[in-house]
Amino acid sequence: MKVDIIGRGNVGTHLMSAMSSKCDAAIVNPRTLKGLRNNCDIYLISVSDDAIADVASRLLSFISQEAIVAHTSGTTPLSILSDLYSIRGVFYPLQTFTKGKDLQYNEIPFFVESNKSKGEEKLCELARLISNNVRIIDSEQRKALHIASVFSCNFVNHLWALSDSYLKEHGLSIEMLYPLIEETAKKVKELPPYYSQTGPARRHDMKTINEHIYSLGKDKNLKEIYSQLTNSILSKYNNI
Amino acid sequence: MKVDIIGRGNVGTHLMSAMSSKCDAAIVNPRTLKGLRNNCDIYLISVSDDAIADVASRLLSFISQEAIVAHTSGTTPLSILSDLYSIRGVFYPLQTFTKGKDLQYNEIPFFVESNKSKGEEKLCELARLISNNVRIIDSEQRKALHIASVFSCNFVNHLWALSDSYLKEHGLSIEMLYPLIEETAKKVKELPPYYSQTGPARRHDMKTINEHIYSLGKDKNLKEIYSQLTNSILSKYNNI
Repeated sequence: MKVDIIGRGNVGTHLMSAMSSKCDAAIVNPRTLKGLRNNCDIYLISVSDDAIADVASRLLSFISQEAIVAHTSGTTPLSILSDLYSIRGVFYPLQTFTKGKDLQYNEIPFFVESNKSKGEEKLCELARLISNNVRIIDSEQRKALHIASVFSCNFVNHLWALSDSYLKEHGLSIEMLYPLIEETAKKVKELPPYYSQTGPARRHDMKTINEHIYSLGKDKNLKEIYSQLTNSILSKYNNI
Repeated sequence: MKVDIIGRGNVGTHLMSAMSSKCDAAIVNPRTLKGLRNNCDIYLISVSDDAIADVASRLLSFISQEAIVAHTSGTTPLSILSDLYSIRGVFYPLQTFTKGKDLQYNEIPFFVESNKSKGEEKLCELARLISNNVRIIDSEQRKALHIASVFSCNFVNHLWALSDSYLKEHGLSIEMLYPLIEETAKKVKELPPYYSQTGPARRHDMKTINEHIYSLGKDKNLKEIYSQLTNSILSKYNNI
C-alpha cells in the first residue's frame, strides 16, 4: 500500500513512524506539497482542523480521482471533503501524541469512516497494519469520542498540572502522587469508574469539602474547579 | 511492634492486611472496642474524620499514657488528639483504597507527623515495615497533599465516570479510551504535566471548543465542567 501523509505535526509524525516499516509511506509538507506522489492508494491529511479544507482543495490537481483522501481529525466531519473527492474518509487514531515520545502503536484504537465501502476497506486495511484495535464509526460517534477524550485526557492532565503547581507552593511535589495516580488509572480498567469513586464528595463529607474550599480561598480558579466537580459528584451520588 | 487498628473501613482493612505479616497487628471495631489490647506500642484510629475525636476519648480509659495514638486522616489536624494523649501522631497513607482490591503497599507514600520525636520515630518505623516511601511532614502540608489528591484522583476518576456515561449515550464505551488514559497517566511521570498538555484548549482552538460546548448543550453539568476546565487551561497557556 502506498500512502502519503500530508502534515508534519504530532499526529502526522507518529503515523509516519508507525507506518514506515509496514507500507510505502512518505510524509509531505502541507504548505508546499513538495514530493507528493500522484499514484498513492491513500492520502492522509493530518493538519489542524482549520487547514483541512484548504489542503484538500490544493491536493486536487495533483492526484487521481480514484485515490482515497482521508483526514485524521477527531472533530471535523467527513463532509468537509465532499464535492472534492469521490472516495473520502476519516482515519482517526484516538491517542495523545507528543512529538519525540515513542508509543505502542498496536494498541491505539483507530476509528475509520468513509462514504464508500472501498474507502472503509482500504482505510481499515491500513489501520490494521498498525493496530489491533480498528473500528468503523460515524461522524456523530467520532465527535462524542473526541469530546470524551478531552474530558478523559486533556482535562485530567490539566488537573494534574494544577495539583503539581499547588503542591510546589507547599514545598511538596507531584511525585508524591505518582502511586495514587497510577492506582487510579489502573482501577478504571477493572471497575466502571462510577463504582470506584472515592473522596469527600462521594461520602457527602461536607465538613472536609468546606475546609478544602476555605483552604483554597486565595486561588479563585482552583476554588471554582473544586466546587464545580464536587457539586457534580454530589449530584451523581444521592445516597451516601 | 504491637499495633491495634481501630476502624474497619477501607483504610483500616488495607493497613491490617499490609501489617499482618510484618508486626503484631490486630483490627478492632470502633464502636465496641471489643478485643482492644492494653499494651500496644501504637494505636491507629482509622475512622471517618467526624468520629476521630469520639473514638480517641473512648480509647483513653483502656490504654496506657505512654502509648502512641495516631489517626490516619488526610485532613484532620494533629491537634484533635491534644489534651488526651502525650504522644500523638498522624499516620497517613496517600493512596486510594477500595475494599477487596489488592495493592502494592511498598510503593504507597506514608506521611508521618507527631508532637514528639519518639512518636515520629515509632510511626516511621511502623510505616517502613510496609513501605519504602515514608516522610515526615506537618499538618499544613498534609492538608495540601490531601487537597491535591482530591484533584488528582477523585476528580480525575469522576471525569472518567462522566466520559463513560456520555460514551454510553452514543453507543460507545469507556474501554475505547483505555489506551489514551494509560498513556496520559504514564506521561505524567515522564514530563511535568504542565508541559505535556494537549487538546483544543491548549491550542487555543476556539472553533473546536465552541463546537464541543454546542454538542454538550443538552447536558448542563458536562457543559459547565467543559467550560470551566477549558477556561482554566486557556488562562494558563497565554501563548499558543
